[in-house]
Amino acid sequence: MKVIIIGGGAGGLSTASNIRKYDAKAKITVITRDKHVAYSPCAIPYVLSGDVKNFNDIIMHQPEEYLDRNITVLTEAEVLEVEKEQNKIKYILMNDKKRHERELEYDRLVIATGGAPFIPPVKGANLKGVFTIHTIDDGFKIKKWANKSQTAVVVGAGLIGLETAYGLKKMGLEVVVGELVSQIVPRLLDPDMARLVQNYLEKEGIRVILGNSIEQVMGTHKVEGVQIGNEIIKADLVIMATGIRPETHLAEYIGCELGKWAIKVNEKMETSIPGIYAVGDCVEVTDAITGHPTQSPLGSTAVRQAKIAAKNIAGQFAQAKPVLNATVAKIGELEFGAVGLTKTVAIYNGIFVISGKKRALTKARYYPGAKRIDVKMVCNLQGRIIGCQIVAEERVAERVDTMALAIAKKVTCNELVNMEFSYAPPVSMVIDPIILAAENACEKLKEIGE
Amino acid sequence: MKVIIIGGGAGGLSTASNIRKYDAKAKITVITRDKHVAYSPCAIPYVLSGDVKNFNDIIMHQPEEYLDRNITVLTEAEVLEVEKEQNKIKYILMNDKKRHERELEYDRLVIATGGAPFIPPVKGANLKGVFTIHTIDDGFKIKKWANKSQTAVVVGAGLIGLETAYGLKKMGLEVVVGELVSQIVPRLLDPDMARLVQNYLEKEGIRVILGNSIEQVMGTHKVEGVQIGNEIIKADLVIMATGIRPETHLAEYIGCELGKWAIKVNEKMETSIPGIYAVGDCVEVTDAITGHPTQSPLGSTAVRQAKIAAKNIAGQFAQAKPVLNATVAKIGELEFGAVGLTKTVAIYNGIFVISGKKRALTKARYYPGAKRIDVKMVCNLQGRIIGCQIVAEERVAERVDTMALAIAKKVTCNELVNMEFSYAPPVSMVIDPIILAAENACEKLKEIGE
Repeated sequence: MKVIIIGGGAGGLSTASNIRKYDAKAKITVITRDKHVAYSPCAIPYVLSGDVKNFNDIIMHQPEEYLDRNITVLTEAEVLEVEKEQNKIKYILMNDKKRHERELEYDRLVIATGGAPFIPPVKGANLKGVFTIHTIDDGFKIKKWANKSQTAVVVGAGLIGLETAYGLKKMGLEVVVGELVSQIVPRLLDPDMARLVQNYLEKEGIRVILGNSIEQVMGTHKVEGVQIGNEIIKADLVIMATGIRPETHLAEYIGCELGKWAIKVNEKMETSIPGIYAVGDCVEVTDAITGHPTQSPLGSTAVRQAKIAAKNIAGQFAQAKPVLNATVAKIGELEFGAVGLTKTVAIYNGIFVISGKKRALTKARYYPGAKRIDVKMVCNLQGRIIGCQIVAEERVAERVDTMALAIAKKVTCNELVNMEFSYAPPVSMVIDPIILAAENACEKLKEIGE
Repeated sequence: MKVIIIGGGAGGLSTASNIRKYDAKAKITVITRDKHVAYSPCAIPYVLSGDVKNFNDIIMHQPEEYLDRNITVLTEAEVLEVEKEQNKIKYILMNDKKRHERELEYDRLVIATGGAPFIPPVKGANLKGVFTIHTIDDGFKIKKWANKSQTAVVVGAGLIGLETAYGLKKMGLEVVVGELVSQIVPRLLDPDMARLVQNYLEKEGIRVILGNSIEQVMGTHKVEGVQIGNEIIKADLVIMATGIRPETHLAEYIGCELGKWAIKVNEKMETSIPGIYAVGDCVEVTDAITGHPTQSPLGSTAVRQAKIAAKNIAGQFAQAKPVLNATVAKIGELEFGAVGLTKTVAIYNGIFVISGKKRALTKARYYPGAKRIDVKMVCNLQGRIIGCQIVAEERVAERVDTMALAIAKKVTCNELVNMEFSYAPPVSMVIDPIILAAENACEKLKEIGE
């Protein structure tokens, strides 16, 4: 069987590797416009911050290395045409000055084209010194430019924006983050929990401006400042971290059905055209709580989808599940994450909810180094947990995972308070903060019931 | 309502605090032989190691502090008699030289007598310099004695034994651990996983002798050595960490039914005598996997049981669940834990199992400070996960909790591999080691099926 995978990110390459796992003989070709494959785009901010030494460290494989598994990776190659009646694609190698058209046949095609940064349509957005942060090349360029800069404005207070802001701050720049809505990370956290993260950023010396849109980028030859709301902020460097749009042009052109957000796929990760699959940031997923279509632009989601697509392509059967968007981030010493719906998003979706909250510690209170931990649990009026947010200086990720499992298994707060959690003074409290937040949620539910 | 609670450990005091939460008016008396209450016995080894500065730090409340919540705590008091027909107890204050008998009435009685260290019946076990490690007083005495010692033998390689061995090593002593069976922590880990912990202890300079029993303690006025198997080991200090036996004498004397291991209780934590409850190390619990009676001498279990007992005493309804014994420990930099059954214990119980294993990392592999993590997952032949063991230098506790939830919710390894886990390079791998171990388990099951 011949498989062509368009896109060399987490979704594309994981699909390739997984197909090889289930089918020793398949002829697998990955074709990508990028020069580098198999790197971790989420790690770019950590190279800026200096936590990871250099960009080469985050490239995990060279294209040639895939040949060991008999996977061909064509880099700097552009797909011109998919002839779906003939099951073949036409492409050119971008270094080929004659633009010689090449062909490749497939039995199965996988679209893993990812997303592309969205840049708000403002004056000056194309000035030198204005960057998006999406590929490793962006990272190289930003670092180089930042080395000769004193001031930076990051537009957008999503995870990538904040991580990048912190990285630039660590490089020694004065950093301002501007965000359109009135809180940071609005998709991830409710305002009260987001405030904890904002406090940390401000303590680290990053200024945050909320509730104002970017009006223009100022400068003549290169960027000199940014107008956010009525304020003009000096900037030698601007990062547009204003979101990623699914890259669906090719799929649309081929005739794959699009949904509200991106490419529609069934549970097998197959598009509306039989034999053509799609995975990663370019596809639409189903929200496990609302049942509505949504996006899940996470490396972990792409890798999970890749496994499902690969199994189905290899003739086995696997079903993608609705997503909860279990997410974690670490900025400096602060770890925070969430899974399921925030209270805000739940209400927006017409779901009546209560929330339980608890501030506690990550270790026994007498144990040196215990850190503050804040947990917020969102439950529907039947007590079913539908979301959880956690902010602390350690041990957040695995608690998010525990809650992802709890939500997936439809656990109620009443059930959770009786669940077993492990305990040892250097690593936990005798009653876990998650349990304490669930107890608080139970009390709230009881008050409503009375 | 008048409640008397006999025992001032985690079970007894949590019962008191919880009853107060649900019943503002109850007259609550806690009566205990100990001088200190509300301290964390699991933390004693960390005072020896120096991680916690002194014993006073691990005492969380003074008896008087309970008066704020209108809970009377009688310390150094001994119960002489329970007159269950008259619903009253007779006790003396141990400091009262006249041994004046006092009486106290109850509507509900709670037995929270905990456990007592078991000392193997060998010659010399009563010599000076031989200690058990159970109360904070033991801790004081051990530290004082260790300060003038050079060599120590710890008999018993359970968690308390190993933690104490490490504490003594950190105090500068030469330490040997002797264990009867052929592996350390046999209740917690399978031999292969236990070996990882043993390697760490040996790297830290602790000698471990397996598969040999203690024959005698040698010495004239005070301990001078220990004979383990045929070998005589020099020792100025000996710790008998050879297990805890449930303290059931009082319950038996009153006429409460005992089970195979300890006091029998129903789902409400009530003994065979109506109105008399029991919680903590002195009660028998049901194993969630085998359905058989077992023990769960964990602070976290005691606290959970206390909540159940308190709710029922306060006229609400709550049911104790069978236990999985979710356990975690930290020795030096090594964290390890387990939940459910080991492969060894499963086989011993006649359950056919397979196990999936994975060695991976705790962060993205390019991220500085990533630690090795080993996960072993035990599944029955239907794929249901019935146990999990984890050893790593960080982030074990919460993974144990995730697996406790997975096991409680009867998740199979096939289901787990499609579960969502959060990801960010500084805190996790894009595919969690738990998922990788579950994938390995799925492969093993498939091999069997084929």
